[in-house]
Amino acid sequence: MGGDAAPGVVIKGANIARQRFPQLQFLLFGRESEIRPVLDRMKKLESVTTVVHTDAIVRSDERPSVALRSGRSSSMRLAIDAVRDGRAAGVVSAGNTGALLGMAKFVLKTLPGIDRPAIASYFPTLKGESVMLDLGANVSCHARNLVDFAVLGIAFARTVLGIMRPTYGLLNVGSEELKGHEALQDASAILKMSDLPGVFVGFIEGDDIAKGTVDVVVTDGFTGNVALKTAEGTAKMINEYVRRTFRSSMLAKFGYLLARSALVKLRQRVDPRRYNGAIFLGLNGIAVKSHGGTDALGFANAIGLAVDMAEQKFIEQIRIDAAALNQQTPKKRAAAI
Amino acid sequence: MGGDAAPGVVIKGANIARQRFPQLQFLLFGRESEIRPVLDRMKKLESVTTVVHTDAIVRSDERPSVALRSGRSSSMRLAIDAVRDGRAAGVVSAGNTGALLGMAKFVLKTLPGIDRPAIASYFPTLKGESVMLDLGANVSCHARNLVDFAVLGIAFARTVLGIMRPTYGLLNVGSEELKGHEALQDASAILKMSDLPGVFVGFIEGDDIAKGTVDVVVTDGFTGNVALKTAEGTAKMINEYVRRTFRSSMLAKFGYLLARSALVKLRQRVDPRRYNGAIFLGLNGIAVKSHGGTDALGFANAIGLAVDMAEQKFIEQIRIDAAALNQQTPKKRAAAI
Repeated sequence: MGGDAAPGVVIKGANIARQRFPQLQFLLFGRESEIRPVLDRMKKLESVTTVVHTDAIVRSDERPSVALRSGRSSSMRLAIDAVRDGRAAGVVSAGNTGALLGMAKFVLKTLPGIDRPAIASYFPTLKGESVMLDLGANVSCHARNLVDFAVLGIAFARTVLGIMRPTYGLLNVGSEELKGHEALQDASAILKMSDLPGVFVGFIEGDDIAKGTVDVVVTDGFTGNVALKTAEGTAKMINEYVRRTFRSSMLAKFGYLLARSALVKLRQRVDPRRYNGAIFLGLNGIAVKSHGGTDALGFANAIGLAVDMAEQKFIEQIRIDAAALNQQTPKKRAAAI
Repeated sequence: MGGDAAPGVVIKGANIARQRFPQLQFLLFGRESEIRPVLDRMKKLESVTTVVHTDAIVRSDERPSVALRSGRSSSMRLAIDAVRDGRAAGVVSAGNTGALLGMAKFVLKTLPGIDRPAIASYFPTLKGESVMLDLGANVSCHARNLVDFAVLGIAFARTVLGIMRPTYGLLNVGSEELKGHEALQDASAILKMSDLPGVFVGFIEGDDIAKGTVDVVVTDGFTGNVALKTAEGTAKMINEYVRRTFRSSMLAKFGYLLARSALVKLRQRVDPRRYNGAIFLGLNGIAVKSHGGTDALGFANAIGLAVDMAEQKFIEQIRIDAAALNQQTPKKRAAAI
């Protein structure tokens, strides 16, 4: 029931995902009277779908704390409960981000050894694709949290992006004398000593994100949120400049027509729908947040992300890595934190 | 003597600036044996230039604290001294950023009512041009500093960008429950009550930077540095994607040829040299830091920025605004901080 055009976009998205992953079965939580009319037109989807009716929904402007207390029979909560109970391999929602995170944290709990969950997303770079976290779950972070985010990001890169020894770095500012907060210094000291299944390159700067200098960008939720949105805003601005450029003269318009098929490929490459889906990492279960304003294709991609994580046994991978880190370095971590 | 290709780029940049601003006179500080051979080939520049010889230079990798202690006869220090003594209207350097900031702070002092200087820069947006600060002078900030940055940014927008009632906002993260640090909340409360010559729009997010939602983006030096570099990196990535797209097929290559003059205009619009020059705001004098890797055209633009600030009486404007803010709200500020 979440997102700007629910439940239509969600159901249509599920139908696209069904075609891509014929092994999938769906649980749809929400108002049956709104779901059925859409589902009725998609017989194949209907045959692999169970509708769980509930009237209660979490509004997009609801405070997460309110949703957590009073939303126990909401569609969002019931979907998360299904993951906890093993009836679903993961939950995908386009609803209220804060409520989804709060409920998922409360119901699924964090993994052993992980203090706080993080929001992660992956995106295109000059070299390929990278993942960045945290993107807003934790506004301020201790060194301990940043180290956990590194563990989570590496596991994501290994399982979902298929990079077996991912490079990772801590997002910082450049100037020597200004080298960032204490938490960053401490996290760097811990990561240098750690034996995670990746390559720690140390501090990186904002321009390293799009360069693809590392596969995993580790940062606090405030900086990560600003960086991700700044990158999105800049990409939109340049795309708009390019669009205006091709309309600025007759010759440019002809040029556009000739280059059109190449430009369409470019647009597909940086299509935000392709990268739709923020992942809550560090929980005892898979939870993916779709953009509220996405379309069916975007929502299908968010489902695909959850499917990838489930099939690649992401949760199991994290359990192994987090346990290894805690075994290796309990004293060092305590000393450095 | 600062920058990757000093002193050649600096002198050639001065020569371009001389043509743009025939009223200018130049003081060049550094090794006369290296300066003269270049200057000798530019007779018109030579006729309005005084060379002040010194052998000592601040290296690009020198620690600011070391440069401050031992660089009293360095070209950088002598140039700043000239501003303090009124022999120069401003200093422009492509050298070590931290050393330049440290020395400028020590020699020029901060303006009355301003606690800490900030680094600012302006850049293109979808609507026009905006200024953002701090970009790295202050890694962590109190509410008081953010309020000062608003004062400085507004004065810059009024005098240099020519926007008489600039809009301004505090860079924050979006989600309701996560609305940023305490310093941001306090600064917002103070700015809402203040009577600055601008329009406070409250909190903005990363994507608002390129949208041009506000004329002045106010943030701490850590976040601002990451945001600026992230935007630069993203712009470079998209430009590279576009470049590759036009080389990907014969048709696309023809398309490029037809659209070429429009695309060249676009490239000029987003040319980083056009926006070269970070300004140290809040000091008792004008100090502009050019990118170390820029060319003569970029350096000339950094000089142009200093000229604009001097001619628009930037320092006087800030004095008036800072005094007005302190008179209006001393109790409120004390209460809120």
